[in-house]
Amino acid sequence: MRELIKKWGVFERREVSLEEAEKEFAWNEYKVELMREFAEGGKQLTFYTSGGFVDLCKGGHVEDVKEIDPKAFKLTKLAGAYWRGNEKNKMLTRIYGVAFENEEQLNEHIKRLEEAEKRDHKKLGKELGLFVFSETVGKGLPLWTPKGSTIRRILERFIVDEELKRGYLHVYTPDIANVALYEKSGHYPYYSDSMYAPIQIDEDQYMLRPMTCPHHFELYLSEPHSYRDLPIRIAELAHLYRYEQSGELMGLLRVRTFTLSDGHIFARKDQADTEINQSLDLIEYVCSSLGLKQGINYRYRLSLGDRSDASKYYKDDASWDEAEKVLENVLINRKSEFYKAENEAAFYGPKIDIQMKNVNGKEDTAFTVQYDFVLPKRFNLKYKNAHGEEEQPIVIHRSSIGALERMFAFLIEHYSGNFPLWIAPVQLKLLTISEKHAEYAQKVKTEIENKNPGIRIELDTRSESIGKKIREARTERIPYIGVIGDAESDGHKVAVTKRGGTDLGALDVNEFVIQLHTEIENKV
Amino acid sequence: MRELIKKWGVFERREVSLEEAEKEFAWNEYKVELMREFAEGGKQLTFYTSGGFVDLCKGGHVEDVKEIDPKAFKLTKLAGAYWRGNEKNKMLTRIYGVAFENEEQLNEHIKRLEEAEKRDHKKLGKELGLFVFSETVGKGLPLWTPKGSTIRRILERFIVDEELKRGYLHVYTPDIANVALYEKSGHYPYYSDSMYAPIQIDEDQYMLRPMTCPHHFELYLSEPHSYRDLPIRIAELAHLYRYEQSGELMGLLRVRTFTLSDGHIFARKDQADTEINQSLDLIEYVCSSLGLKQGINYRYRLSLGDRSDASKYYKDDASWDEAEKVLENVLINRKSEFYKAENEAAFYGPKIDIQMKNVNGKEDTAFTVQYDFVLPKRFNLKYKNAHGEEEQPIVIHRSSIGALERMFAFLIEHYSGNFPLWIAPVQLKLLTISEKHAEYAQKVKTEIENKNPGIRIELDTRSESIGKKIREARTERIPYIGVIGDAESDGHKVAVTKRGGTDLGALDVNEFVIQLHTEIENKV
Repeated sequence: MRELIKKWGVFERREVSLEEAEKEFAWNEYKVELMREFAEGGKQLTFYTSGGFVDLCKGGHVEDVKEIDPKAFKLTKLAGAYWRGNEKNKMLTRIYGVAFENEEQLNEHIKRLEEAEKRDHKKLGKELGLFVFSETVGKGLPLWTPKGSTIRRILERFIVDEELKRGYLHVYTPDIANVALYEKSGHYPYYSDSMYAPIQIDEDQYMLRPMTCPHHFELYLSEPHSYRDLPIRIAELAHLYRYEQSGELMGLLRVRTFTLSDGHIFARKDQADTEINQSLDLIEYVCSSLGLKQGINYRYRLSLGDRSDASKYYKDDASWDEAEKVLENVLINRKSEFYKAENEAAFYGPKIDIQMKNVNGKEDTAFTVQYDFVLPKRFNLKYKNAHGEEEQPIVIHRSSIGALERMFAFLIEHYSGNFPLWIAPVQLKLLTISEKHAEYAQKVKTEIENKNPGIRIELDTRSESIGKKIREARTERIPYIGVIGDAESDGHKVAVTKRGGTDLGALDVNEFVIQLHTEIENKV
Repeated sequence: MRELIKKWGVFERREVSLEEAEKEFAWNEYKVELMREFAEGGKQLTFYTSGGFVDLCKGGHVEDVKEIDPKAFKLTKLAGAYWRGNEKNKMLTRIYGVAFENEEQLNEHIKRLEEAEKRDHKKLGKELGLFVFSETVGKGLPLWTPKGSTIRRILERFIVDEELKRGYLHVYTPDIANVALYEKSGHYPYYSDSMYAPIQIDEDQYMLRPMTCPHHFELYLSEPHSYRDLPIRIAELAHLYRYEQSGELMGLLRVRTFTLSDGHIFARKDQADTEINQSLDLIEYVCSSLGLKQGINYRYRLSLGDRSDASKYYKDDASWDEAEKVLENVLINRKSEFYKAENEAAFYGPKIDIQMKNVNGKEDTAFTVQYDFVLPKRFNLKYKNAHGEEEQPIVIHRSSIGALERMFAFLIEHYSGNFPLWIAPVQLKLLTISEKHAEYAQKVKTEIENKNPGIRIELDTRSESIGKKIREARTERIPYIGVIGDAESDGHKVAVTKRGGTDLGALDVNEFVIQLHTEIENKV
C-alpha cells in the first residue's frame, strides 16, 4: 500500500451500465452479484480508477492519494468471514486495517488497544487466579476461585449492609419456581427465548428463574399492607438464569447464570420521585466507593417506550406518559446528565439505565432503575389507603451494584487488576529475608490480624531470594509488600513498599496497623 | 372404652380354621382378606374373646383387662387412611390413641406433645413471620421473609467467617452443570432418583446440582498441587436441589432446594486424622455457639459400609477397613460418645453423622463428616509428593452448620422462637409512652445504632397504650423491650425489660449500649 500511494493520484469516476460492469468484472462472481443487486435496486453503478486500478465503488475518496500519510495507517488483522455474513456462503478472507490523519493518532490508537488487551478481564482473571471455567461443568458457568470469591464476598457484604442501612429488607427466595408464576407475571411465554426449558416435577413444570420480581411480589402478597407501611423495599442477591447463545458468551460479562443485587420498591405513587432519587443516590454512592466516576466511567440513559408498539410495550399511554415524566424530572431536578434512548424500555415501563463504559470505550448497561405500572396490576398488589380503601402500589425495579459477575469484570478491567486495598484478595504480603526471620514475621502477621479482624495477609517464608519474592508479590498486584529482615526484627518494624513502588521505609508495626485500618475503613 | 373395661376380664384364645373364621366374619370383607392371606402364608388363625367381644388377633394382651388404669389412655385423633396404605383402596377411618402405665405418665406425654406443637417450626415460622410458602412458586420452595432472612444472614456470615479463620477457602460455583460432570463423579445415573430432570441447552444436558463435590474437584483440577499445599480446604454456601416426594415435604426440614454449608478437604492420608478432628472441633464450636449440647441435642453416629453389597458401596475392602478405622479412632481418641450404624455409609466411604434430636425426640442427620477414597480416583486428583511423584489425595466431605433451612427449623423448635440475642431478628424494641417521647426515642435508637453498627432495633411510636405495645412486643419474642416516658427522657435513660419478664429498671443509655455490645459479641 505504501508503494502504491507513490504511484496513484486522483480518483477518476465513471458511470457504467450493468452490461459494461459485468463484462469488466466477469472474473469476480462476488462483484457481479453486487452489481446486479444494485442495478435491480435502481442504483447507478460507478467505477473509480486511480494508478491504473479500477474498482466498483460508490465513491467518497480523498481528493488525491498523495494526501494520505503513509505512516498513518496499519493493517491490524486477518480473519475468515462468510460472504455477506451468511454461513451458507463461502468463507473469504477479511483484512482489517485502521487509518488516521497522522502517525501520532495511529500510535495513540494502537497504544489504547494494547492497554485494553492488557486489562482484558479474561486474561487478568486467569493470570491473577480470580475465576476459571471448566469444560465439564459447562459453557458460561464460571467457578469463582478463592481469590475471586474474596472480592465477591466483600462486594456482597458491602451492598447488603449498605442497603440494610438505607431501609431495605433483604430476603432469600428460591431459584426455581412453577411456570405458573411466570405465566402470572407475563414473562412466560413472552420472555421464553431467554429462559431455559422447564423441568417436570410430579405434575408441574418448574423454571430456573430469569428474574426475581414475581418472587418478591409473592412475598408482598403474603401479608396485608397499609399506606403507612409503604414504601416497602425488598432486596436480594438473587441467582438468575438466562439463556445466551454460546457464541455470545464472554468471560464474566456475558454468562448463563449470574447473581444480581436485585430489589423491588413497593411504593405509593406520591413516593415514586423520592424512591427513584434514593435509588440513584445509592447507585452513585456504590459507584464512587468502587472508584467509578459519573461522566467518565458511566452515564445515565433514559430508556423510553414506543406507544405505537403494543406487541413490545404494555398499552396504556397515560401511564407511560406519567412514568416517563417522573423519571425525566428526577434526572433533571438532580442535575444529572443523561441522554434519551427510544424503544429501550421494559415491557412494563420506562427506565433509567446506568451505561458503563469498558476499556474499549464500548458501553454496556450495568444496571437499571425501572418504573413499573403493569406487574402490580397482574399480581393484584394492594394496600389500604388512609380512607381504608384498596389502592395499587407502583413498583420500582432497581439494582445497586448490578450482576456481581459483570461488575467484577468491569472492576478487573478498570483497575487492571490493581484492586483498591479494601477489596484486594490479599492486602499485605510479608516476605522474610532469611529463614531466621520466619518466627518474627509470623508474630507480625498475627499481631496485625488480631488488631484488624478480617484483614487478608499472606506470608512468604520460602528460602528464595528476597528479590524473587518481591517480584512475585508485584506480579500478584498486592497493595502492600512488607519485608522483614534483621533491622525490622530488632525494632518491631516492617519495611513497607506500596504497590506501584513507593517505598514507605521501615514502619513501626503499631503505626502500620493503624494506617491499614484507616485505609480499609475509608475504602482507599 | 372406660365402660367396657368394667365388663371385660381375661382374654380367651381360640385357634380357628380359615373356614370357621370366614364364616364368623363374613360381614367384614377386610378381615376376610387378611384371614385368607394369613392362612395362605401358613399362619394359624386365632380369635381372642373378652366380655363377649371376638376379634381376629395374634394375641399379646394384658392378663386381665382390669389391670388397665382407665385414666391412663386417651384417644388422640381420627384420620382417613387408605386400606393397607394403598390409594387405590377405599378410605377407612383410623383412630389413634396412646396408653401408659398410669395417669401421670399419660399426662406427661400429652404435655410433651403440646409443648412440641407449640414449638413446631411451621407454626412458629408463620406466627413470627420467619418464612412463607407460596402455592404459585411451588411446593417445598420456601421464601425467607425479611425476619427469617436476617437470621439466615447472621448464620451465613458466622459460619463463613469462622471457616475462613480456620483456614478454609470460600468459593462460589454454579448451581447447574453439564450432566457429564455427574457422570464423571458417578452420581448420575446412580443418584438420579434424587435429581431433577435434565435441561437441554444447545447440544448438552444440564442438571440442577444435588451436591457440590464435583464442582470443588474441578476447581482443584484447575491448577497443579504440591504436597506442601495440602490440606486444601474448599468451602461454599451451596444451593442444592434434590427431589423429595410431595408427601415427604415438611416445612423447612424437608424441602426441594436448600443451601448447604458444604466443604471438601483435599488432604494427604497422613493428614486425615488431624483434619477430621478439626472438622469435629468446628462442628462442636458451631453447635455450642448455637446452644446445642452434645449428648442432649445431638450425638455422633459412625456410619459404616457393607463389604458384601457392591451395588451400594464401592468395592475396595482394604480402603473401607482403613477409612472406618481412621474415623473410629478419631472418635475414640477425642473421647466422644458415639454409636455405630451398619449400612449407612456413603457409596464412596464411611462417615460420622451428627444426629440432631428434634422436639419430638426424633433424630435426623443434621450433617456429616465423610472419608472419601473413591471420587479422588474418578476425578484423577493428584498432588506431587516430596519426591516429585504423583499421589492421590483423599477427600473429606463435611458440613459445619448443615443445610441452613434444616438448621433454622431445629433452632426455631429448640428455642421455641426465643432466639438468643445475637441471632434475634429484632434485638431491641423501643416503645414510647406518649407521642411527646417519640423524638427522644428516635435519638436513643440512633445513639445505640451508631455505637453498635448492625444492631437491629425497632421503634414503636404508635399512639396505642403502652400496655398493648408491651404485649405485642412480647408476642414477637423480642429479647429486650425498652420503654421511654418522661423519667427516661429527662435522665438519658431507658426502662428495660428482658424477654421472660426480668425488669432491669431504668438503665443509662451508655451503659445499656455496652451491655448489648458485650452480649452480642459473646453470643449470649
